[in-house]
Order: sequence, then structure tokens, then C-alpha cells
Amino acid sequence: MAVYTDVGDEALSAFLAEYALGELIAFRGIAEGVENSNFSLRTSSGDYILTLYEKRVDPAELPWFLGLMRHLASRGVTCPQPIAGRDGVALRSLAARPAAITSFLPGVWPRRVRPEHCRPLGIALARLHEAGADYAAERGNALGPQAWPPLLEKCRATGDRVQPGLIAELDAALARILPAWPQDLPRGQIHADLFPDNVFFLQNSGGRTLSGLIDFYFACTDLLAYDLAICLNAWCFEADLAFNVTKARLLLGGYESVRPLRPAERDALPVLAQGAAIRFLLTRLFDWVNTPDGALVTRKDPLEYLRRLRFLLAAGGPGALGL
Amino acid sequence: MAVYTDVGDEALSAFLAEYALGELIAFRGIAEGVENSNFSLRTSSGDYILTLYEKRVDPAELPWFLGLMRHLASRGVTCPQPIAGRDGVALRSLAARPAAITSFLPGVWPRRVRPEHCRPLGIALARLHEAGADYAAERGNALGPQAWPPLLEKCRATGDRVQPGLIAELDAALARILPAWPQDLPRGQIHADLFPDNVFFLQNSGGRTLSGLIDFYFACTDLLAYDLAICLNAWCFEADLAFNVTKARLLLGGYESVRPLRPAERDALPVLAQGAAIRFLLTRLFDWVNTPDGALVTRKDPLEYLRRLRFLLAAGGPGALGL
Repeated sequence: MAVYTDVGDEALSAFLAEYALGELIAFRGIAEGVENSNFSLRTSSGDYILTLYEKRVDPAELPWFLGLMRHLASRGVTCPQPIAGRDGVALRSLAARPAAITSFLPGVWPRRVRPEHCRPLGIALARLHEAGADYAAERGNALGPQAWPPLLEKCRATGDRVQPGLIAELDAALARILPAWPQDLPRGQIHADLFPDNVFFLQNSGGRTLSGLIDFYFACTDLLAYDLAICLNAWCFEADLAFNVTKARLLLGGYESVRPLRPAERDALPVLAQGAAIRFLLTRLFDWVNTPDGALVTRKDPLEYLRRLRFLLAAGGPGALGL
Repeated sequence: MAVYTDVGDEALSAFLAEYALGELIAFRGIAEGVENSNFSLRTSSGDYILTLYEKRVDPAELPWFLGLMRHLASRGVTCPQPIAGRDGVALRSLAARPAAITSFLPGVWPRRVRPEHCRPLGIALARLHEAGADYAAERGNALGPQAWPPLLEKCRATGDRVQPGLIAELDAALARILPAWPQDLPRGQIHADLFPDNVFFLQNSGGRTLSGLIDFYFACTDLLAYDLAICLNAWCFEADLAFNVTKARLLLGGYESVRPLRPAERDALPVLAQGAAIRFLLTRLFDWVNTPDGALVTRKDPLEYLRRLRFLLAAGGPGALGL
């Protein structure tokens, strides 16, 4: 669920009065999402999403995110667009939190990934990377490789409660992945969290169309191929965590139809996927051992990513991933 | 949060194929509500709500609820309307649960009740009672006075953990309320759960307009004045649980502008309000002592209703309620 903060009537009215969006017609909390509070907002001028940025988002970074979303849209990437108030300012404050209204995107995220989703995903990811190339401002990846050892330290005392031997296994994995991490690959703006629930599709008579990408609040400046590796992990493993080579080929083929990988990027995909697996494993493990039992938050199972990590560490080169 | 059950892509597509609602455009879980799973659904023909009925709702009773909503709308009460499939059937099955699509109602529920909400509420409640008069099918109130002693028994072992002495206090309250419960007041179809989050308002240039009533899944056949008593408790106490006589008078005045109370109904309002307080206190207490700590459910504080109950038991006659 993702309504951590509710909004009072007068506060909402006063907030909306700062926009030229017409009369309020409907306002409902959205259940999806885990980081921020999201509401669907309808006014006499249309549909919008209102987001209250909760504690995990650094307010100082919000202009970078909103600027990136505007930049990407101006280059043809369909993503939520920050809506400015009458004064031209999009990033405001509501219920003592930073808040912004963005445009509503049609589409439904796939509950079960099918091969038909993967080529459009690859195309959209590559277009995002190309569109971001001239967004000059950089944002370092706060959850990049440099962040993994300290995250693991924070889980060391209690992490083995999730699974005996887990911490030692992660120590060994990091000792193998970090020295192999590539340094000289093409860098740029990456989404860094392009899981299925952040990608909308519309099913028209002609088939599935990718209708937009959402939730750019992990976006950062990092290796472009790392974004592809995150998607390989998130889209190409089955529910039983078997790796689906067909989906991986479709994802990569879609990506390369827009932006062909360099040989060094292709060679690095296995270690990038291992790193992507340990990144999500570590943040989920941290949340698991640090979330109070009664909290109204959906904790994601860290062990799903342990199984991906083991597969990727055993798989070897790009060939084993069907690439 | 109110998405207990998610819906697979193919299951949703197959479900929607049974309707003539056009193409699926958007589908998002709604955070509000506690009993069922609700989704906002947009198709090329408009906006709808999809509800999956979870375990607290008896499937055998769903036709009564959906029939009541249809009946009330045909008499001018704005409430969600069940949408039938191509075969004329509105109550279907999805994700192994009974499911129905209803119409989308514009409006926003008041986070903070203001006096201006209370007269329109009273008018809407009385109109609901009048409109229900010729809905012949009866549904007994499963949470009426006969249900309170057994509910209290189920909380007896652990209820005092919520507050020492609570169970003895509730024993004494029931011993006073049940013998005084009125028997011969006008009966009919009541909403029985008309809290602020079930009443939508639109703020137009002319002021606040009540735009609709939702969530009829506690509706039943019972004393009409009991419904008014539930609203007195839910709408006329301040956040600090002080009773607001002005709101009570506006609520009652609105109600009586449509359906004047009989003297016996007016005289019974204090005991009906005491009963309404103990009903919500008991179900909240039951949920409190029976919900596992990790469950993704918002538990409502039973002690809020203990404070209302104490006030009402001490208040005496209708005059003390400003009526």
C-alpha cells in the first residue's frame, strides 16, 4: 500500500488553488507503490497523480527527477509530466511533505510478464537512454556498488535470521563481483528500477503497446548496460525463478534495435546482472530486518533475489544468458 | 489499504470480455476501504470500480446488496450502480472471489467533518430511507443488538489487554442498553455504516454538494433511527471526541426536512446512539484482538468508541445531545 500520509480537505483545496486545474472532482489513494504516497486526482480539466514524497526521497534531489521527466518527455519518452502551478513551480509542499502533481498515464502494468512484453520494454529502455543523453545534470547512484558493503554491514547482525549462512554467502558474492565491476562502459541517465509495475501497456486490437514508464525516483547517472541488467533480472526470470532465455533475447533485441551494445557492454552483462541482483537483495534484506512487524508496508522477499544471484554467479558468460 | 487480492492479466482480460465496456485503459488498486479489494478501472467507455468481495462478505447476500443499490438509484439516490455483463449478470467471479463492476462516483470524502457537511448528510440519509421503503427484500442486521453479547464473549479473554477493566465496563453498558432497546420504531433499509469515508462531496462555486453514497455492504433492514444514531456518532464528535451539538442539530434538521422523526424515535436516539457506539466498539475490539501483528490491515482504535459510549451513557436524554 502506498498512502503513508493523508491530506486534509482544506490543505488539498489550498494546494489545488495554486494550480489552474479547475474544480476537484475525485481524490483517491492508490494502493500501488512503496516509497511515496500517491493519489489519483481528477479535476474538471482531467486526470492527474498527486505524489507526496516520503522520507526516503531527498527533497534536494526532487528537481533533478522532475527535470529528467520533463526532459525525457520532450524527447518523446512517455512518462509522467510534472504539472506546474500558476507561478510556474511544479515542486510544492503539502501535508508537510514535498509534493508534485504529474500527468496521468493510461495503461496497466503486467502482473505476469509474457515474451511479448520484452521487446517493447527493450526498445523503451534504449529510447530512454538515448533521450537522456543530453540531460546534463548528473545524479550519482546512491545504491551503486560503493553502497553495497555498507548495506551488508547494516544487515550483518540479524541477516542470517532470514536464512542461515546468508551473510557469509553475500560476503563471498561481493568479493567476487566488486573487483570485476566494469569501469569504462557508456554512462548516462538510467531508470534503475524498471520493474514490471513501473511499465504500462495497453492491449489494443493490434496487440500489446507499451504506453509509458513511471516512477523515476531511483533514476541516476550510471552505466547504461546496468539498467538493462536490472531489467534482465526483473523481467526474464519466471515465477519459479527459472531464467527465460527467450525473454532475455527479446529484451536485448529490442534494446539493440535502438542502441546496439558495445562488445564490452555485452561482455559485462553477467557481472552487471549479478550486481543488480545483490543490490535488490541487499535493500530488501535491509528493509526485512528493519521493518517493524506491524508496519503497513509490503516487504518484498529478499530470498527471491538470492536465487537469481546464485543462478547468475553459476551461469558464467553472456552465452549462458542466451545473449 | 484495500487490495487483498491482485488480479492476473489474462484473468482481467477474460473478465472484461464478458462486458461491453470497450478496451481496458487503466487499472489501479484503491487504498481506501477495509473489507473488500477495490480497483479503479478505466475503459474506453468510462470509469468504473471493480470490487472483489473478500471473506467477510457472504456471497449469498451479494444479490441483496446489488439489488438495493439498483433500487435506490432508481429512486434518485446517487450510489454506485452495478454494471451488468453482456449476459445481463452483474455478479460474477474473478480471482476465485465474487466480483462486480460498479459505476464511478465523482466526489471526495471529507477528511475533517465541518458543520456544512451535516445538513446535506441528514437529507441524503432520509432520502435513502424513503427510497428504500419499497425494496421489499429484508436482510437482518447481523451486527444488531443480538450480536453484541456473543461478540463481547469472543473478546473476553484478551480484551482487557487493550485497556484494563474494559470488559467489565462493556458488560455493564450492555446490561443497561439491551433492556432499553426500542422495538416498535419504524423499520426499513438502512446503510448502517455511513461514516465520512462513505460520503462524497463536491465543492462547487456555490458551496458543498453531497455527490453520492458508497459502500452498502453493511446495509440491512433495521430501525431507521438507528442509522441516524450511527451518523451522530460518526459525524458529530470532534477529533478530541467532544460532542458537537451544532453538527448534531444540522444533521437532524436535514434529516427531518425530508422525513420528520416520530416522538418515539426522537426519544430513543440516546439509547440508539449508545448501541451504535458499542456496536463499533465491539467489532473494532474483536478485530484488534484477532488481527495478527503483521497483517496489512488498518486496525481502527476501539477506544475512540469507548469515549463516545461513556459520553452517551452519561448524557441522558435527547436534550443533552442538542436534539
